[in-house]
Amino acid sequence: MIFILREKADYSVLREKLQDSSASYKFLDLYGKKIVVAWPDEYVSNIVDPSIEITVKPKKPYQLVSNEWKKEPTKVKVKDAEIGDNKVIVAAGPCAVENEEQVLTVAKAVKRAGASILRGGAYKPRTSPYSFQGLGEEGLKILKKASEETGLPIVSEIMDTRDIEIFKKYVDMMQIGARNAQNFDLLKEVGKAGLPVLLKRGMANTVEEWLLTAEYILLEGNGNVVLCERGIRTFEKATRFTIDIGGMVAAKLQTHLPICADPSHPAGKRELVHSLALAAVAAGADMLLIEVHPHPEKALSDSEQQLTPESFEVLMNRIRALANALGRTA
Amino acid sequence: MIFILREKADYSVLREKLQDSSASYKFLDLYGKKIVVAWPDEYVSNIVDPSIEITVKPKKPYQLVSNEWKKEPTKVKVKDAEIGDNKVIVAAGPCAVENEEQVLTVAKAVKRAGASILRGGAYKPRTSPYSFQGLGEEGLKILKKASEETGLPIVSEIMDTRDIEIFKKYVDMMQIGARNAQNFDLLKEVGKAGLPVLLKRGMANTVEEWLLTAEYILLEGNGNVVLCERGIRTFEKATRFTIDIGGMVAAKLQTHLPICADPSHPAGKRELVHSLALAAVAAGADMLLIEVHPHPEKALSDSEQQLTPESFEVLMNRIRALANALGRTA
Amino acid sequence: MIFILREKADYSVLREKLQDSSASYKFLDLYGKKIVVAWPDEYVSNIVDPSIEITVKPKKPYQLVSNEWKKEPTKVKVKDAEIGDNKVIVAAGPCAVENEEQVLTVAKAVKRAGASILRGGAYKPRTSPYSFQGLGEEGLKILKKASEETGLPIVSEIMDTRDIEIFKKYVDMMQIGARNAQNFDLLKEVGKAGLPVLLKRGMANTVEEWLLTAEYILLEGNGNVVLCERGIRTFEKATRFTIDIGGMVAAKLQTHLPICADPSHPAGKRELVHSLALAAVAAGADMLLIEVHPHPEKALSDSEQQLTPESFEVLMNRIRALANALGRTA
Amino acid sequence: MIFILREKADYSVLREKLQDSSASYKFLDLYGKKIVVAWPDEYVSNIVDPSIEITVKPKKPYQLVSNEWKKEPTKVKVKDAEIGDNKVIVAAGPCAVENEEQVLTVAKAVKRAGASILRGGAYKPRTSPYSFQGLGEEGLKILKKASEETGLPIVSEIMDTRDIEIFKKYVDMMQIGARNAQNFDLLKEVGKAGLPVLLKRGMANTVEEWLLTAEYILLEGNGNVVLCERGIRTFEKATRFTIDIGGMVAAKLQTHLPICADPSHPAGKRELVHSLALAAVAAGADMLLIEVHPHPEKALSDSEQQLTPESFEVLMNRIRALANALGRTA
Repeated sequence: MIFILREKADYSVLREKLQDSSASYKFLDLYGKKIVVAWPDEYVSNIVDPSIEITVKPKKPYQLVSNEWKKEPTKVKVKDAEIGDNKVIVAAGPCAVENEEQVLTVAKAVKRAGASILRGGAYKPRTSPYSFQGLGEEGLKILKKASEETGLPIVSEIMDTRDIEIFKKYVDMMQIGARNAQNFDLLKEVGKAGLPVLLKRGMANTVEEWLLTAEYILLEGNGNVVLCERGIRTFEKATRFTIDIGGMVAAKLQTHLPICADPSHPAGKRELVHSLALAAVAAGADMLLIEVHPHPEKALSDSEQQLTPESFEVLMNRIRALANALGRTA
Repeated sequence: MIFILREKADYSVLREKLQDSSASYKFLDLYGKKIVVAWPDEYVSNIVDPSIEITVKPKKPYQLVSNEWKKEPTKVKVKDAEIGDNKVIVAAGPCAVENEEQVLTVAKAVKRAGASILRGGAYKPRTSPYSFQGLGEEGLKILKKASEETGLPIVSEIMDTRDIEIFKKYVDMMQIGARNAQNFDLLKEVGKAGLPVLLKRGMANTVEEWLLTAEYILLEGNGNVVLCERGIRTFEKATRFTIDIGGMVAAKLQTHLPICADPSHPAGKRELVHSLALAAVAAGADMLLIEVHPHPEKALSDSEQQLTPESFEVLMNRIRALANALGRTA
Repeated sequence: MIFILREKADYSVLREKLQDSSASYKFLDLYGKKIVVAWPDEYVSNIVDPSIEITVKPKKPYQLVSNEWKKEPTKVKVKDAEIGDNKVIVAAGPCAVENEEQVLTVAKAVKRAGASILRGGAYKPRTSPYSFQGLGEEGLKILKKASEETGLPIVSEIMDTRDIEIFKKYVDMMQIGARNAQNFDLLKEVGKAGLPVLLKRGMANTVEEWLLTAEYILLEGNGNVVLCERGIRTFEKATRFTIDIGGMVAAKLQTHLPICADPSHPAGKRELVHSLALAAVAAGADMLLIEVHPHPEKALSDSEQQLTPESFEVLMNRIRALANALGRTA
Repeated sequence: MIFILREKADYSVLREKLQDSSASYKFLDLYGKKIVVAWPDEYVSNIVDPSIEITVKPKKPYQLVSNEWKKEPTKVKVKDAEIGDNKVIVAAGPCAVENEEQVLTVAKAVKRAGASILRGGAYKPRTSPYSFQGLGEEGLKILKKASEETGLPIVSEIMDTRDIEIFKKYVDMMQIGARNAQNFDLLKEVGKAGLPVLLKRGMANTVEEWLLTAEYILLEGNGNVVLCERGIRTFEKATRFTIDIGGMVAAKLQTHLPICADPSHPAGKRELVHSLALAAVAAGADMLLIEVHPHPEKALSDSEQQLTPESFEVLMNRIRALANALGRTA
C-alpha cells in the first residue's frame, strides 16, 4: 500500500496508526513527494489520516516502481544525460577497462559519434576464474580520468557490497549486472548509496521479478533506477542470449522507470548488434548500452561482440534517423 | 553439395556419375537456375563435369536455403505483393474467419490502411478440442470472395496433407503454422504444390532447425518460401511468446529467403503489438503478419491480441515513417 | 461438462435438451461407461435428466483425460502387455528399422531381457531432409515379421493422416512423435483408428497442453492413450533434451491415463540412459521406451544414444530391483 | 593445466619456471595432494620439473573439479555426515528459521526419521522486499542451539561477503543459493572460509557454468564442495522449477565432487516432493536437501512445498528401500 502524503502536514498521528497496525512501513522521499509504503496491505487497509493525500493499492507485487501511483515517466539524470526524456541516451565503451590508452581512445570516439555516457568494466564477473577478472580500482581510476578528459559521465558494474565506497569515489552510475540481479544485499546497498543505478535483468528473471529487484532499490529511497534488458536464457544458441523486446515493452507498460537495452550481450556477434539496437529503439527504449573497443579482435573479453568505433558511428547515425522518424532525438 | 549447372548443357554424363556415386541427388529448377543437390558430400566431392558451372559446398546442414550459393536476396511474389523487395509488405486480417461480413470489413479496412495481403484462418490449430476449430473450406470461400472484392491476395494456414487440393483452389500463399513446423510430410506436399509458402518457426525450433524446415520445401523445387518468426517458448509469461528478434536477424544473415515477423502472437496483448511490429521492421523484417478484427473483444479466437482497424491504420503510418527513415517503403 | 449416463436408460430426452442448449456435445463409450461431453459449460450447466447418473464439471480445460470424473487409473492393453498395472512395461528396439536382421536380433535380445513391446521407426521425422528418412511400409513389414517371430507387440511412429490404413495393418500401438504432438488432424485420425496410442509430449508443450492433445484422441472415443514424457527444450545443452520428471509427476496427478518415459532422447548419450530410466521408474512411470541397437555405433540415426543389447539387459535387472523396492514388478 | 607434485620435493625451481612463463598459477593443498594449477595452458605446456609427478591438461574449461585428474569420488565430511560415500545423506529442516520451538521440533523429528544434517534459512533471499527476510544472526543462533540439542550439523545459506565471520561462528556447512550462484566475490570468500559448501546451481546456469562456480571455490584451496541441483527455469509452470535430473547426471560424469538434489524447490508443491526425491536418488544423488516444517500451512515462506514431519518419515522409509535396492544405504 502506498500513501502519498500532504506536504508540511503533521505525520505523527499517522506514524502511531502505522505502529499500531503491526504492519511494516517506511517513510520515503521519492520524486519530490513524501510517501509511505506499508505492508502487508490487509494490516493497513483501514488507515485514514488527514496527512494522507492519496492512497494507492497497486495490483501487482511491486509498488514503488509501479505506474499505478506515479503516472508520469521518471527521468534519471546522470550528470548532463537525462534518461527517460525525449532523447535516446547512448552509453558506450569497452566491455572491460584494459588500459588508459584503450579507454581514452574509445571515450573520445564514442563522444564524437554522439554517446552521452562512458561504460567500462573494472570489476568483471567472469564465468571462469581463469578469465581476465578486471583491473579493479585501477580500472575505475582510468575511467575517471577518461571522464575528466571528455566530460562523459561513467557507468560501471559493482559486484560486491564491500566496494560501495570505492565506487562512490569514481563513478556516476552504478551498474548491477545480470548475475547479481538478485543479490539482494547488493541491491539494498546500492539503494542506500544514492547514485543512479543501471539495473540489468537477470538472465532467468521474469519481468515481474525484474521489477521487484528495482523495488528493493526504491525502498531504500533511491528512485534513480534505469532498467536494462540484456537478453534472457533460452534454448536458442544462434545468439548469445535472446533479447526480450516483448518483455522490455511489457515492463515499460507497468513502470514509470526508464528502460535501457543492451544489444551487445544478446547479440554475441558484432554482425547482429546494429539490428538489435535499432529494434530496441523502435520498441521504445530510452537508453542503449553498447560495447565499443578500439581493436575488438584483441579485446580481453567479449571480443566477438564489441563494435569498432567506425561501426559505432554508423550505428549512431542510423539510431538518430530512426529516433527522428519516431518523433524523438538521439 | 550444390552443383550449379550450365544452361543448355548435356547433363547425361553427370547423371551417370551421380548414379555411380551412390549418393542421393536431385535435379532442380530454382530461381531460374538448373542445379543439382547431392548428399552426402563425401560421396560426390570428386565429381567434375563440363555441365557443372559452379560447385558449392555449404558449411551448414542446410544447403538450398543458404546464401552461400545464392547471394542475392530472393523475392517472393504473391500476386502483386513482392516480399523481399524494398517495400515492407504487410499481411493483415482476422485470426479466424468467422463470417463474410467480418472478413470483408477487415479486408477493406486493412487495404485502405496499406496492407498488401489478406490473412485469415479457416482451418484452426487449437490447443483445446473444445475451442472454435474454424470454418474449414467454407472459410476459404469467404476469403476468396474478399480477395475478389478487394484485389488482396490471400494467405491462410494449411494443417493437413489431405487439404492441399482444396487450398490450391482458394489461396495465393499457404501458411505452415508453428505447430506443424516440423510436420515433414506437410512440408513436402506444400513444396510440391508450388504456391508461395509462409513458413512459421516452430515455437521450440532453433534457427538452424527452422532453416532446415524450409530446406524440405526447396528440395521439392519450390523456392517461394518466406520465413516467419512468431515467438519462441521461454520462461517469460508477461508475453504470450518471446519474439526472437535476434534469431530473426541471425537467420537473415544465413539465408537468401525473405523474413516475416508476426508481432501479434508473441504479444498476446494488443498493447504490445505496435512496439513489436516496429522493432521487427527496424531489425530488417521484409514482411509483417498482423491480426486485425473489426471487434476484437468479440473474436472467436485470439481476442486479446487482435488490433482494431483504427489501431492498425495508426500502426501502418508508424511503420511507413520508420521504413522511410531506414531507406525503405511500406 | 461430463455427464455419466445410466446404463440402459432412454437418452432421447437428454439428446433433445442438448440440442436445444446450442452447446456442442458428443455421446461416447469410454472405459465401459456411456458418457456425454458437452461444451461450453455455461450452455449445459442447468441440464438435468433421469438418464444422467453423475454430472462432473472438471476444473481444468481438459475433461475426459482428467481424473476428476474417473478416479481409477486406466490400464492400456497392447496385446499381453498391460500398461498402467503393477508391472512396469518396457518397450525397446532400434530408433529406426534398418533391415530384417537388425530388427530380429534386437527383438530377440530385448525379449530375453524382459521387454514386453518392440519399438522401431519406419517413418522417421528427421530435422534434415538429407538424413535417413526411414524404410516406410517396408519397415513396418519387417517389424510385423519380428513380432510374429517373438510374440512382442509393435509400437511405431505415424507421421501423416494418409498413413492410418497402412499402420492398422502392421502395428499394435501407434506412436505420435514430439514433432507431431500438436498435429491436430493426426490426433483426430489416430483417435478414430481405435488402436492404443503412445502420445509423446511436444518439446515445447506444457503439461496442460500435453493433456489436451490426449483429450483430442479421447474425444474420438479412443481411451487407450499412454502419455510419454521425452524431454523438453531448455537452455541446457549437456543433454539433448531436459527430461521433465516433475512435469511427468504433475501430469500423473491430474489424469487417469498411464505415463511412459523415454530416457533415450533426453539423454542423447548412452552414458545417461540408465540413470534417467531408473529416475523415471522411481518417480512413478508405468512404462519405459528405450532405444536398443545391435551395433549402436553403426546406426543410421540416434547412434549416440542407443544401448547395446548387453547394456539393456543390465538396465532391465536394475529396473527390476528398483521396481521391487517400490512394491512393483518389471 | 594441473601439475600434481611429488611430496617433499623442492618446488623452488618449478616456482621460478612458473614465474618466468608469465602464466597465472596457484599452489594448492587439495585432497591430501600438493598441486599447481596454472593458466593459460599454452604458457605452461612446456614446463617439466622433477618436482612434478603428473601433468594433467583437462579438456574442459574447469580443471580442479574435473575427474580427469582425480578419478576417485570426493567425500565431503560435515561433522559425522559423509557426503559422497555409500550412504545417501539427507539434510532436512524448515525453509526459514521462524522461532526456537519450530526449529527444535523439526530438528528432533527429522533426526528421528533418519536425517543427518539440519537445514534452515536465517538470511533469506526473497524475490520481493515485502516478503519475510529471515531472522538473520538470531536465526543462526537458534539453529546452533538445535544442533547442540540434537547433534545434527547445520547447513544454512549465506548471501553476502560481509557475513562470513558470523556464519563461521554458527554453521557447519555454508550454502550458496541459486540467486548467488554467480556472485563470484561470495564464491571466493566462501572458498577462503574453508567450511564445507553446499553450492546450488543457478536457475539459468548450464552444467558447465555450474562446475565453473565450484572451480572458483576450489581455486581458493577449499575442496569440500557439494553440488546441488535445485531446478532450472523453463517454460513449464506446472512445477515451480524443472528439476534437471539429466543435468545432474551429466555433471556427475564430469566431476569428482558429490551431488545433492533439492526436490522441494522444483516441486513447489508438497504432492510432488516424494517422487522427485526418489527420482534423484535413483539417478545417483549422494545427498538430498528437503524442506520440513511442523505446520507447513503456517510457514512464513515456501508454505506450499514443505513436508510435514510425518510425510518426511514416510519419505525416508521409501528412500531407504530404494537405496538398498541400488546397493546403497540411507
